Amino acid sequence: MQHPDKLPKVGVLGGGQLGRMMIQSSMNLNVYIKSLDPDPNAPCASLANEFHNGSLTDYDTVLAFGQDVDVVTVEIENVNVDALAELEKQGKKVFPQPHILKIIQDKRLQKEFYRENGIPTSEYFLIDRKEDLPKHKDFLPAVMKIGKGGYDGRGVEIIRSEADFEKGFEAPSLLEDLVNIEKEISIIIARNEKGATTVFPPVELVYTPQNMVDYLLGPANISNEILEKANTIATDLINKMGMVGLLAVEMFVTPEGDVLVNEVAPRTHNSGHQTIEANLTSQFEQHLRAILNLPLGSTKMRSASAMVNLLGEEGHTGEAVYEGLHEVLSKEGVFIHLYGKLMTKPHRKMGHVTIVDEDMDKLKEKIEIVKKTLKVKAL
Amino acid sequence: MQHPDKLPKVGVLGGGQLGRMMIQSSMNLNVYIKSLDPDPNAPCASLANEFHNGSLTDYDTVLAFGQDVDVVTVEIENVNVDALAELEKQGKKVFPQPHILKIIQDKRLQKEFYRENGIPTSEYFLIDRKEDLPKHKDFLPAVMKIGKGGYDGRGVEIIRSEADFEKGFEAPSLLEDLVNIEKEISIIIARNEKGATTVFPPVELVYTPQNMVDYLLGPANISNEILEKANTIATDLINKMGMVGLLAVEMFVTPEGDVLVNEVAPRTHNSGHQTIEANLTSQFEQHLRAILNLPLGSTKMRSASAMVNLLGEEGHTGEAVYEGLHEVLSKEGVFIHLYGKLMTKPHRKMGHVTIVDEDMDKLKEKIEIVKKTLKVKAL
Repeated sequence: MQHPDKLPKVGVLGGGQLGRMMIQSSMNLNVYIKSLDPDPNAPCASLANEFHNGSLTDYDTVLAFGQDVDVVTVEIENVNVDALAELEKQGKKVFPQPHILKIIQDKRLQKEFYRENGIPTSEYFLIDRKEDLPKHKDFLPAVMKIGKGGYDGRGVEIIRSEADFEKGFEAPSLLEDLVNIEKEISIIIARNEKGATTVFPPVELVYTPQNMVDYLLGPANISNEILEKANTIATDLINKMGMVGLLAVEMFVTPEGDVLVNEVAPRTHNSGHQTIEANLTSQFEQHLRAILNLPLGSTKMRSASAMVNLLGEEGHTGEAVYEGLHEVLSKEGVFIHLYGKLMTKPHRKMGHVTIVDEDMDKLKEKIEIVKKTLKVKAL
Repeated sequence: MQHPDKLPKVGVLGGGQLGRMMIQSSMNLNVYIKSLDPDPNAPCASLANEFHNGSLTDYDTVLAFGQDVDVVTVEIENVNVDALAELEKQGKKVFPQPHILKIIQDKRLQKEFYRENGIPTSEYFLIDRKEDLPKHKDFLPAVMKIGKGGYDGRGVEIIRSEADFEKGFEAPSLLEDLVNIEKEISIIIARNEKGATTVFPPVELVYTPQNMVDYLLGPANISNEILEKANTIATDLINKMGMVGLLAVEMFVTPEGDVLVNEVAPRTHNSGHQTIEANLTSQFEQHLRAILNLPLGSTKMRSASAMVNLLGEEGHTGEAVYEGLHEVLSKEGVFIHLYGKLMTKPHRKMGHVTIVDEDMDKLKEKIEIVKKTLKVKAL
């Protein structure tokens, strides 16, 4: 189908669930979405206005993909940044900007950026391989994080003592102070080309033993002082980056009341999913507004909320079926989002459930029901 | 793209804005949408999982379209009912059922159904052509409505006296009592195969001089007594029809406190658009839940709301541009829904805007701003 000239055409690198929810949102503003993904059955495949099957990391593919769109954006960081830089050089709008993606693709560069720009973060050393760990014996306990390519808890190991040295990575890594964490929060912040910014109210993250997000609570149960610190840090960070788009800022709150940036993602993020139902503007619409230089929307909360990730069950690999769907659908204020993935495997993100309820006790009750009832298994 | 067997596959006759918003909703439940529309650039064209360009009124096209889906449904009434009846005979699920579509396609059969089933409605006569009007002189003032094919105020004429007889239609019509209307309200009701029903809280309709809906207010400002009457009528009606799916019931409230059914639509409806943001379940998801025999969702209101139709400006025909978009996007609690139609013409439905605000005065203020600011013009 021919793209009408007046609708902004957005090229999205990545056709996963984040792209899929962006499509849902884009329809409201007549934004045309062209999607690229290596998986021909990606969640966006049959729903994007235009879907291209191809590599996100191949220079020529990405360069060609961006030619006929107004703005190029991403729903995943692991893309060919050189091709994006070339597109930018050719005058194409690329948001987030390639130089920011380059920093964020490497946790070491991220940390260096924080240090150079006075963004509070945990102490760290750069190390080249696990053989360098003995040099930092006095710094233990610490967290070793691989610089590039880690995700969802992979590429992260806690090094408490010499006995853990062998768990380290054979790759350029960070060795971070094992911060005493009271709470982990996340703020989604948007910035458009005019430099306007808006923060979403922070949510609080609770993790599973597998180091995947178990559920999120909004609003985060933090003091006004912490809230202000966190908002200031997020705003300061996106401004110093000069980034256009959406930035998810994951932060640690320490028992001493310090707020430290842990990691960032320059895109819509798992910790922003409940904005679809719980805020006046969703993170997906906000991202589009930011990259299209539209006025940013109100981030006001409509209700307290929780978000539960729907992960593939342990021991189940194959075509996905959703157990307990009817039961959960019958609960009031429970919103199911399935991602249209055909195959499930343990811990794969297959969907999420947002729960809204003004009563925090009822909210937590529903979280438990959803977690107990809704299961993704294999046929 | 191949449809995976486990996702219910829904065939939707009509690829307009109602189908488009159904697609947005279907994505959350992994429901696969196959869409049919005669316009190759229909709002659903590049967004449905599968789009077919073809006639909705052609027997063979509709019969073939329904072969490989689990459920056939509609987003428009003017479809080939004989083909749907044949699909039903072949064992296919068709919701709303063809015999109900047949009744609803003809306003005369609708009225007869109300009368036979004790559903309160205005007095009327069936007439064959305008030459029969003199026989009903004593019944004036009245409204002449063409039985088949009228929509959005077309095919409706007020006949106050003999001088108006020439405005009548040369087709089988209804001559309805010109009811003294205090308020016009609409209720969306859903019913699934198990016979479970849920009503959305009624909204109140305000009309433009062109007899198009100007804006809707929710909740309707009516007494509990009227509310109960309206709910009872809607529930009684859908049960007596035995209909599965969504039924929009437009009703008149008279100064005497009578509630009379005006017209119904067996599908998602313009008067249900604000459920997307203002209720816990949207009409689009509710429709899918009903036809897929899922538990119906809570229809509880999250907030007071208004819905303004975004119609093509008078004097503008051609490629659509949206004036005032930035200004309206900067208002809090204002949700823009554009329908992706390339061409505008006077009064064409190009989108809608939903406004949520707990404060009724602020709500009405925003309605006026939206109406004054946002305009659909031609390039």
